[in-house]
Amino acid sequence: MSLHEEVDALRRVPLFAKIEPSKLKLLAFTSEKLDYQPGQDLCTQGDAGDAMYIIMAGEADVLINTPSGEHRVARLGKNSFVGEIAILCDVPRTATVRAAGSLTALRISKDLFFRLVGEFPQIAVEIMRELAGRLDRTTKDLAKARAA
Amino acid sequence: MSLHEEVDALRRVPLFAKIEPSKLKLLAFTSEKLDYQPGQDLCTQGDAGDAMYIIMAGEADVLINTPSGEHRVARLGKNSFVGEIAILCDVPRTATVRAAGSLTALRISKDLFFRLVGEFPQIAVEIMRELAGRLDRTTKDLAKARAA
Repeated sequence: MSLHEEVDALRRVPLFAKIEPSKLKLLAFTSEKLDYQPGQDLCTQGDAGDAMYIIMAGEADVLINTPSGEHRVARLGKNSFVGEIAILCDVPRTATVRAAGSLTALRISKDLFFRLVGEFPQIAVEIMRELAGRLDRTTKDLAKARAA
Repeated sequence: MSLHEEVDALRRVPLFAKIEPSKLKLLAFTSEKLDYQPGQDLCTQGDAGDAMYIIMAGEADVLINTPSGEHRVARLGKNSFVGEIAILCDVPRTATVRAAGSLTALRISKDLFFRLVGEFPQIAVEIMRELAGRLDRTTKDLAKARAA
């Protein structure tokens, strides 16, 4: 993929939609693009985590180990980000993220993440929005599961 | 409470710990301090929401309506923030927040919130950290509740 095509792909990610193309070029250079086979893990619960991922193509399952086995808690599609909890909270990976089919992801290191957030408050707002939305859905599911 | 004392109280809130005192003076002027009686609601599930709250003293319960009644999903203490989901996601209040005893809260309007986040990336990082931590805890509770 050419640099021009990469910048174009980044512009279609809502998280980066408001960033100037010249800055996106830098992001295309400093982030890493990775391809995964179906069933391959982007990250594994319990491991140390020093990056977040943005799904550029494909889907991934979010799995959590419980005493009764591995439970799928979410499926993520194109443009979703994942892996932010470990780098924000300085804790080991809280879930396993597994490619549901062929998948391409952008790997954003912890350093790059904090530079992006510091330079582009809009990225921080989009991440807060997404986290708040996920928290809302999970809290409702929990209230339902406990009431059942 | 004098302005000096108010700024001092704001500096003790981790969210504002890294902001210069001169900026905190402005925050003390532009935010609103509210006192609640035990059992009084800071906000009510389903209502429109145009502010978030920081608990300066006291504790609050977070309650969610389910078909089988009101369920408490969290208790929040001093320095916690709450009410951010409605202003971030433009949705009605997703929960009721009720004073568990006498409570004092700082009301931060939606406008002020976005100005703070734009001007102080550190506030955005602290909010992302807290949201990520809450999401992690809630997701684990959900996996446990479903496995049970």
